[in-house]
Amino acid sequence: MGETQKLKPAARVSGKRQDVWTIINEAAAASPNQPIVNMGQGFFGYNPPKFIIDAAKDALDRVDANQYSPTKGRPRLRKAIADAYSPFWGRQLNPETEVTITTGANEGMLSAFMAFIEPGDEVIVFEPFFDQYISNIEMPGGKIVYVPLHPPASGATKTSSAAEWSIDFDELERAISPRTKMIVINTPHNPVGKVFSKEELQKIADLCVKHQIIILSDEVYDRLFYVPFTRISTLSPEVEKLTLTVGSAGKNFYATGWRVGWLIGNPELLQHVSAAHTRICYSSVSPLQEASAVGFEEADKYGFWDEAIKEMRGKVDRLNEVFDELNLPYSDPEGGYFVLVNMAKVKLPEDYPFPPHVASRPRDFKLAWFLIQELGVAAIPPTEFYTDANAHLAEDYIRFAVCKTDEVLEEAKERLRGLKKYIQE
Amino acid sequence: MGETQKLKPAARVSGKRQDVWTIINEAAAASPNQPIVNMGQGFFGYNPPKFIIDAAKDALDRVDANQYSPTKGRPRLRKAIADAYSPFWGRQLNPETEVTITTGANEGMLSAFMAFIEPGDEVIVFEPFFDQYISNIEMPGGKIVYVPLHPPASGATKTSSAAEWSIDFDELERAISPRTKMIVINTPHNPVGKVFSKEELQKIADLCVKHQIIILSDEVYDRLFYVPFTRISTLSPEVEKLTLTVGSAGKNFYATGWRVGWLIGNPELLQHVSAAHTRICYSSVSPLQEASAVGFEEADKYGFWDEAIKEMRGKVDRLNEVFDELNLPYSDPEGGYFVLVNMAKVKLPEDYPFPPHVASRPRDFKLAWFLIQELGVAAIPPTEFYTDANAHLAEDYIRFAVCKTDEVLEEAKERLRGLKKYIQE
Repeated sequence: MGETQKLKPAARVSGKRQDVWTIINEAAAASPNQPIVNMGQGFFGYNPPKFIIDAAKDALDRVDANQYSPTKGRPRLRKAIADAYSPFWGRQLNPETEVTITTGANEGMLSAFMAFIEPGDEVIVFEPFFDQYISNIEMPGGKIVYVPLHPPASGATKTSSAAEWSIDFDELERAISPRTKMIVINTPHNPVGKVFSKEELQKIADLCVKHQIIILSDEVYDRLFYVPFTRISTLSPEVEKLTLTVGSAGKNFYATGWRVGWLIGNPELLQHVSAAHTRICYSSVSPLQEASAVGFEEADKYGFWDEAIKEMRGKVDRLNEVFDELNLPYSDPEGGYFVLVNMAKVKLPEDYPFPPHVASRPRDFKLAWFLIQELGVAAIPPTEFYTDANAHLAEDYIRFAVCKTDEVLEEAKERLRGLKKYIQE
Repeated sequence: MGETQKLKPAARVSGKRQDVWTIINEAAAASPNQPIVNMGQGFFGYNPPKFIIDAAKDALDRVDANQYSPTKGRPRLRKAIADAYSPFWGRQLNPETEVTITTGANEGMLSAFMAFIEPGDEVIVFEPFFDQYISNIEMPGGKIVYVPLHPPASGATKTSSAAEWSIDFDELERAISPRTKMIVINTPHNPVGKVFSKEELQKIADLCVKHQIIILSDEVYDRLFYVPFTRISTLSPEVEKLTLTVGSAGKNFYATGWRVGWLIGNPELLQHVSAAHTRICYSSVSPLQEASAVGFEEADKYGFWDEAIKEMRGKVDRLNEVFDELNLPYSDPEGGYFVLVNMAKVKLPEDYPFPPHVASRPRDFKLAWFLIQELGVAAIPPTEFYTDANAHLAEDYIRFAVCKTDEVLEEAKERLRGLKKYIQE
């Protein structure tokens, strides 16, 4: 082998096109409208509550809380999570065998795929998907089989509930093969904001029980729901046996940089996730595990979960006012902190100078670029979360993250009013 | 496929024998000698210095320092590392292209293997090895080719420097094949305590340049050396081009639970490590990256690096007094915080009741079990870090971690004096 050949990277990291985060961040940095109002990535514009920050500071003063944690996670956090989730499961969860801590939900998902996927095994993923799923499934050699969520037929003309993004269950069943090992669910859903109904979950679960498919349920937005929320694992003992539920302290407690996540699930399955996690990260960040434990222990005392829902729903409503003003239809979220706005009515100037890496992507990338350049508002084009075949379903949408301060939301609204002159009814 | 078949785990996580950490921790928990003096795992028995803890607390008060970091790491930490390591490289390192942050050194090593190893590629690893290397290389499908460090011939009878663990360079060259993609170096070495000499590193480097092999240099104990320490990357531009150097804030700043690590290296190689890291963990823990940045920025002001060496060498000497007293030979470390003690002279009672999972392992596992049960001192049997073929090289050794308070070290010494009656000269 020649020199170049010998030092070349593995296929799993080479030859990918520029990702949406890089495109949007670089565009934002280069925009003439500075400072940019960033409603792109879903990081919080405010801090975790004081009782959790104080708990993190206290942990930093303790020798044991700065050293290696057990690979499965710190006992206090596992117990706090088991206690916090037992009411939803209707029985006491066992912190020793039914909860395992990971380095954020992201590495938790990867650990689950690493635990079960052999090369050629298939994983069903709904479109749009959280982009990290794809590389996480491909890393152990999994093959992704995509099933689209169908947007509401009138999405371009009128606002509707995110509930109206629908699954074609015949399409889903046709996607199942003898190699189907896992299915990924995400509820509340990013970017759609859909909370899967109990009936939808039951239909998915029935297929999984019939075909013995492991359900990986990404429930990182589980504390932010504005309609009744069902956890698929709690539908029946048969479903629970197949389900791994993923959670995130970063999403629950407004600290996306803490990298504390977990899985709850059947011990028979979960032990293999723990084993994979040990081989990937060994253990997870200790002092912030302690702080997250306190978060769960004391959240009810501070009324934190109720307040979180009320506050985030208020932010959704606050932002959506401007889309109502502009008569731009949106998908009203049932959960989470993203709003998908349909901009079919926004007419981009025909001669607008889009750079080649944007011009070559679907219309939503051009919309996002235009918003950054002309209004100084950054948001995310959702076709990044689709295969090329299905990208047309979302090419008129733009995703806004509302987990920002009210001041930032008001500034965003003021800037978005600048869209008015480009809107054609 | 039947039900069991459909839910079975992937080969990468199944069917491993019980690891040394589980065996030792469970033995320690069950010992009649409570509390155990734990000199097994290399976690610190004391906290990071106050200026670093204070920096972590300050970061927790900042909104941005609790949210997602850039996937390559926070700019302040990359700059602090580039500035701190530039003097060793003899030129200014570029924080944008030559430093990338990972979720501890462990995930940094995994990211490097994921970046370069295709199934069937070979990686040369010296024995004894840090156990996580093995699963990290196997995860992307790499094949490990082992080359032993040869212990000093008189190791069973007299104390000698860790320098005397030697490489047979003909053996090393014979291990190289056309599929050899990477070699792993660890200096200062765990568990041997050897600091590879400049001459040894040059010979390894010459082979790597000749065969274009990527050098992954695990230098997590790089601030703890008691003899001159050479970094292989700094030998020549040709070697630097092939080298990725791994570091650890947890090891540098006494906080193994912080999970902040990094790689320094050739941008051409490093970009692929960053890409792999993004797919594994997405980003790393934000507030503790900020604290680690302050650690590097202010270490010199507090004389921290010099103090760290003086303090740890003092702990090595303090513990070794008891082995001198007992006339038990040891391998005097040139760096790091582990001491390998040769216990060939310790005669275990013939009828001692070892449980089957210990009785089936080499003699060092029995020694470790015996120390836990009879003296209440936990230490690590190093044959865990060998292949079965070479385990005999280390079966009389036991590894002690000295990164504990002086009180713990004195208690350990007092208990270890109980070995006297089992020692036969």
